[in-house]
Amino acid sequence: MQKIKDQSFIKSFGNKLRETRKLKNFSQEQLAFEADIPISQVGRIERGEVNTTISTVSVLAKALKVSLKELFEF
Amino acid sequence: MQKIKDQSFIKSFGNKLRETRKLKNFSQEQLAFEADIPISQVGRIERGEVNTTISTVSVLAKALKVSLKELFEF
Repeated sequence: MQKIKDQSFIKSFGNKLRETRKLKNFSQEQLAFEADIPISQVGRIERGEVNTTISTVSVLAKALKVSLKELFEF
Repeated sequence: MQKIKDQSFIKSFGNKLRETRKLKNFSQEQLAFEADIPISQVGRIERGEVNTTISTVSVLAKALKVSLKELFEF
């Protein structure tokens, strides 16, 4: 069960990140630039393909000017 | 700056995890068992020695019966 749960959680997080990014009218490129991470990584996180780290989530939240908690409201 | 900020963020998260665990009267061993992760990993996360993943934070929150957001309130 652990694996399946994680996969759906990671996908939900990716969707929330994309939703938040779009609300802020950021392109993936802008978010990648602001957060100082590769644009390919933004894409993979949003598609739920990578189980990202808390420090990456922290810089993404700062770049989007939202609290970290908001990115986990789903 | 990026590295230093991450390190302090990861340490703050570790402290929050320890604080929450203690509030719930969990030992590191109990938390590791409930979250199905190695006890050494709980220790490293709490000491801010490892930049853990969002799925690990998700299982830790479930094990402690707190919302994910609570673990990021610091």
